[in-house]
Amino acid sequence: MKVAIQGEAGSFSHEAARRMVPGCDIVSCARSVEVFDRVQRGSVAAAVIPIENSLAGSVTEHFDLLLARQVFIEREFLLRIVHNLIAPPGVRRADLRRAYSHPVALEQCRDFFVRNPKIQPTPFYDTAGSVKHVIESGLRDAAGIAGAQAAKVYKGHILAAGIEDDKRNFTRFFLVRKTRRILPGANKTSIAFSVKNIAGALFKALAVFALRDISLTKIESRPLRGRPWEYVFYADFLRGDDQPARNALRHLGEVADLVKVLGIYPAA
Amino acid sequence: MKVAIQGEAGSFSHEAARRMVPGCDIVSCARSVEVFDRVQRGSVAAAVIPIENSLAGSVTEHFDLLLARQVFIEREFLLRIVHNLIAPPGVRRADLRRAYSHPVALEQCRDFFVRNPKIQPTPFYDTAGSVKHVIESGLRDAAGIAGAQAAKVYKGHILAAGIEDDKRNFTRFFLVRKTRRILPGANKTSIAFSVKNIAGALFKALAVFALRDISLTKIESRPLRGRPWEYVFYADFLRGDDQPARNALRHLGEVADLVKVLGIYPAA
Repeated sequence: MKVAIQGEAGSFSHEAARRMVPGCDIVSCARSVEVFDRVQRGSVAAAVIPIENSLAGSVTEHFDLLLARQVFIEREFLLRIVHNLIAPPGVRRADLRRAYSHPVALEQCRDFFVRNPKIQPTPFYDTAGSVKHVIESGLRDAAGIAGAQAAKVYKGHILAAGIEDDKRNFTRFFLVRKTRRILPGANKTSIAFSVKNIAGALFKALAVFALRDISLTKIESRPLRGRPWEYVFYADFLRGDDQPARNALRHLGEVADLVKVLGIYPAA
Repeated sequence: MKVAIQGEAGSFSHEAARRMVPGCDIVSCARSVEVFDRVQRGSVAAAVIPIENSLAGSVTEHFDLLLARQVFIEREFLLRIVHNLIAPPGVRRADLRRAYSHPVALEQCRDFFVRNPKIQPTPFYDTAGSVKHVIESGLRDAAGIAGAQAAKVYKGHILAAGIEDDKRNFTRFFLVRKTRRILPGANKTSIAFSVKNIAGALFKALAVFALRDISLTKIESRPLRGRPWEYVFYADFLRGDDQPARNALRHLGEVADLVKVLGIYPAA
């Protein structure tokens, strides 16, 4: 089964895809729009995309693509983010003067750099890409910081594992397909909606859930692309495809300009 | 007046700071926490920070720092984001084979790369930093993509101006100070609040505004740092420091665990 991810092989998306679809073939895409294009064209069976990190927040581009494209969330998965110091074979820890990684990953490993002042944190545009870079460039004084999958893919050595400061660092991933499929046990729904005027209208929109004792687990406003400071709302609630949820969504249709069900799936 | 910004000189934050505080001295900080540290210590008079982009969404780290630190928003400002192709002096457009910039900026200039297939978009960790890099490295076949301020700071030549696809690209900036000051004409308030259980509780929290006809212009949930999947809400509403706003905030205090006023300021 072919699964598209955004970014280099060896990334956290790669790790999540392997865990969600064991034995899948990874199709690595440079940009997120390509990932969604491939799902819609059917050149891959599914995509695995990060949607939210417990420290860094939402991957807003992916919310926007879920709204814009005809795709459907089938599953969610929580991946513990473990950062590792990965060097070319033969390079020792004492040799290191620089560690490349994405600025967010460097920021999440601050204590490591305080304890290792000889190693300079060096921003790079991607975590797995930083490992690829140090290994393909044959650097002898540099390492990359990335998930363990990057060491496997680029044949690097893990010189230090789990160097992130905060162990409560999780990323939530979605498995996305072209066709709508609701798995048994689906008890969570992701929706997007927009309302004319945010004042009383958002209050009315939330009433459709509150009046039916349906728990929202997330709500986020996002600017509408190309319409500065107009917003669409992304929300998750804890119900599957049952009668109260259908009633709430019908009611939401009365007060909202746009309602789209992005997926109904088992809560991770 | 000293104003701290995150990132290299020549960045969009630098442009915004110059527009908000003409003649200010820029203090460039590598990390956002340093920016807030300096404001709290008093080693700068203020900071100018990006908070939200109309295409890319919120700068979530800055919302979290506004909540965590004892600082106060005094003003907001909307900067039109204009991307420019900036090369070392003497380099001609026909010489270019690569253009470095932050992946978000490269993505916002897609049409330019379609029209100029000989120029390869190359990810770099920072927009202004990419201009600094091509000029300091003396590259003869590369440019950076950044705001016009970067050309001024690093003495680069703008070979093409306004190469972004979507002209409706704005970033909202805050001027942040250590002490609370409410300017004349302040008619907008930013708050953070958290509620015990998101279900009915968020609905009750929004009721305090809806019942008083107070317009919310933004609401966003953010995970609480280190407490996976617990949320704090950031909201803006269109009132200054008047009686209805005070009543609403007192009422919000009855239904929310935490309420913090982040700032009261004139709407941009």
